[in-house]
Amino acid sequence: MGDNCIFCKIANGEIPSATIYEDGDFRAILDLGPASKGHTLILPKKHAANLFDLPDETASKLLVLAKKLGATLKDGLQADGLNLVQNNGTAAGQTVFHFHLHLIPRYANDTVNVKWQPGKLTEEDKAEILKFF
Amino acid sequence: MGDNCIFCKIANGEIPSATIYEDGDFRAILDLGPASKGHTLILPKKHAANLFDLPDETASKLLVLAKKLGATLKDGLQADGLNLVQNNGTAAGQTVFHFHLHLIPRYANDTVNVKWQPGKLTEEDKAEILKFF
Repeated sequence: MGDNCIFCKIANGEIPSATIYEDGDFRAILDLGPASKGHTLILPKKHAANLFDLPDETASKLLVLAKKLGATLKDGLQADGLNLVQNNGTAAGQTVFHFHLHLIPRYANDTVNVKWQPGKLTEEDKAEILKFF
Repeated sequence: MGDNCIFCKIANGEIPSATIYEDGDFRAILDLGPASKGHTLILPKKHAANLFDLPDETASKLLVLAKKLGATLKDGLQADGLNLVQNNGTAAGQTVFHFHLHLIPRYANDTVNVKWQPGKLTEEDKAEILKFF
């Protein structure tokens, strides 16, 4: 745990939060700056900077929890959809360097922008990338 | 499996794809319309329309795989970051109704837009949402 990591303090209850769920591994809180109504963050209690730093044991529990909490949020709020978003690195928009998974309920005609312009998979890129695997 | 589900056909090898990984549960392919170089989709072989439809057993394996493939992509491509994005429902930007997890490598100064305007968590919303849990 980093002494100066705010999400460590929130996850472990040293700083109060709008907690919707807690177990031995995780705390789920309402985001104070929500993209939409019901925007939730799932935080592991044990510090991990990002996905690459998250133990497999923790990773294996996370999506099962996201499914459960996401369904409750979507049904309760009568949302029309849900995005999961998880950012790693400044270039990816990560601003707090303690792993967190965003659950963003979506509503028809909301203004949340989680999309991209599709490019083209070139044969050159494909050949380059396939070499890594 | 839906007879007309294109991702069922790709996941099960009936339609060729730029596959970077395959096991009994999943196939990972390069997106033909990539948001960035290395944009990958992880597809479960067994049809599930979305996160809510994904069996817990499958969900428990998915993030462990995303971590592994994401690390290989990021390192191989010398990317600066990585987004995980998973869309459920038309309102959330889902266009193919077979669960898929996006792995989007990010590069300093790329033009991928996965972000949102932060709103405010009101006491009213908080009280309403906490009632669901």
